[in-house]
Amino acid sequence: MKIAIYGYGNLGRGVEAAIAYHTDCELVGVFTRRSPESVKTVSGAPVYSAADIGDFKDKIDVLILCGGSATDLPEATPMLSADFNVVDSFDTHAKIPEHFEKVNNAALKSGHVALISAGWDPGLFSIARLYASAALPSGKDYTFWGRGVSQGHSDAIRRIEGVVDARQYTVPVPEALEAVRDGGTPTLTTGQKHRRECYVAVEESADKALIEEKIKTMPNYFADYETTVNFVSVEELRTNHSGMPHGGSVIRNGVTGEGGRNTHTIEFSLRLDSNPEFTASVLVSSARAVYRMAERGDFGCKTLFDIAPRDLSPLSPEEQRRLLL
Amino acid sequence: MKIAIYGYGNLGRGVEAAIAYHTDCELVGVFTRRSPESVKTVSGAPVYSAADIGDFKDKIDVLILCGGSATDLPEATPMLSADFNVVDSFDTHAKIPEHFEKVNNAALKSGHVALISAGWDPGLFSIARLYASAALPSGKDYTFWGRGVSQGHSDAIRRIEGVVDARQYTVPVPEALEAVRDGGTPTLTTGQKHRRECYVAVEESADKALIEEKIKTMPNYFADYETTVNFVSVEELRTNHSGMPHGGSVIRNGVTGEGGRNTHTIEFSLRLDSNPEFTASVLVSSARAVYRMAERGDFGCKTLFDIAPRDLSPLSPEEQRRLLL
Repeated sequence: MKIAIYGYGNLGRGVEAAIAYHTDCELVGVFTRRSPESVKTVSGAPVYSAADIGDFKDKIDVLILCGGSATDLPEATPMLSADFNVVDSFDTHAKIPEHFEKVNNAALKSGHVALISAGWDPGLFSIARLYASAALPSGKDYTFWGRGVSQGHSDAIRRIEGVVDARQYTVPVPEALEAVRDGGTPTLTTGQKHRRECYVAVEESADKALIEEKIKTMPNYFADYETTVNFVSVEELRTNHSGMPHGGSVIRNGVTGEGGRNTHTIEFSLRLDSNPEFTASVLVSSARAVYRMAERGDFGCKTLFDIAPRDLSPLSPEEQRRLLL
Repeated sequence: MKIAIYGYGNLGRGVEAAIAYHTDCELVGVFTRRSPESVKTVSGAPVYSAADIGDFKDKIDVLILCGGSATDLPEATPMLSADFNVVDSFDTHAKIPEHFEKVNNAALKSGHVALISAGWDPGLFSIARLYASAALPSGKDYTFWGRGVSQGHSDAIRRIEGVVDARQYTVPVPEALEAVRDGGTPTLTTGQKHRRECYVAVEESADKALIEEKIKTMPNYFADYETTVNFVSVEELRTNHSGMPHGGSVIRNGVTGEGGRNTHTIEFSLRLDSNPEFTASVLVSSARAVYRMAERGDFGCKTLFDIAPRDLSPLSPEEQRRLLL
């Protein structure tokens, strides 16, 4: 299966690394909007200009789009679905219906498969929510994120005047997590489920108290959460906070039997050393499913909800039944 | 969707109870090999003789087979696939290929969908193993069962002379579970992962020491495990051990990145108050998928690996994307 990467940031490098583990995949190359000469890949894979992607129509089985959801993917996914089978990790939840519609039109028209919103959330967490709600129709879902680095929240802190660099960890509130794991169905706001831990390096002359105040009162990002701010050196950020760990849990508590007398807890959890590398690995296994669906002529826009699990695995159906069932 | 139940033991009663929660389903009736007059259903659903099932060919969308894997299902599933779309929970792992083949032939010939080995293990645990191995090709899987009642082990104790009744709990060894949850990849036998807790009521004249010895040395069932035997009264068994709780965890630890520098842990866990009621609820959501696949003419024998998650949910694809993605 011939894979190409479109966009070469953290996620693109993650896909490049993942392909070494998915041994039925071969990396054709990396496409970038930067000057190709300025980009060096980790594996030595060739780098091409995004403008030349049209020359590769018959040389790529699946193109994995590694751009951002804010501005890149809304344009790139429908456009590239006209010529390629694609996978993206679009995660702007409110805009998924619009994205789906545009991508679906392009992919159906051109006869391609376009899988959107793959990864872990949206992605494996979404699948866990679906299986759990199907198995326990009467119940309540909870999603906890973390402990992990939120890029969006880190960026929000970096935009404050006087801040040199910052790293924000989203952390599940242990009491809330335990209450749900114990089978309870409390009503919890996102702010009651999570707290926010910030590590901030500031300019020498900066007013730390003012910066802390600005962080803690920032609407949407921090105001509704218990937030702690730790001022650290740039060096300490680099040494102790350069990783991109993440994870979390999807938990559903539900009942069965007469009068709901029996309670059941379903939990799906991830603990990830590297968010982009794990997400990338899910994207590569998703590309395998896209390739198989394209071979069968099952075109259009898909999400992981539309993918039979067996299409994600490199094993044959017989091997899957023997080794995994 | 018109559902019927074939076999009315714990699992059959579980399906009957589950249908009240799966509101797009209607229970046509229960089929039994006993005399129908001797069986009274909890919900008041009609009871028919298994011998008359042929009269219901056009009145049942999906037939849920609630017999045992040892002798019932190997006969019943292929036979009934000739006239019905069916779901079973066949769990004799070594015989799945043979069962699949026989059921597939019957279902393809008659134009029906037959889903085998649905439930939680095989079932949701199998799916968790598949997604995890697809996401992390380089890694190691662990399945822990319990704390939960094993019917097979309880029965094995009951067959010992002098035993009146017994209940056996399979319990994960906490140290093994923690080592795996911490990201380790130890080599563990089933006996190192689980211990066995037995509650046994015996005849007044019974030789307890001999019975304990017979349990602990029983090959396959107990000899390879740390086993504790507690002698209790029949009354205590009834009062404190009449439930059928179960559960467990599927955990995969795997690596990504250059030289496998990043470790990731994927865990799927269940804690079930009632094993048969939960299994039954999975069977009913599986029946929904079978119905939809039959409508599309996608005939033959299937496992949950072949079922796109969306087909299990009562929600429309648009609702799924809006509420669960």
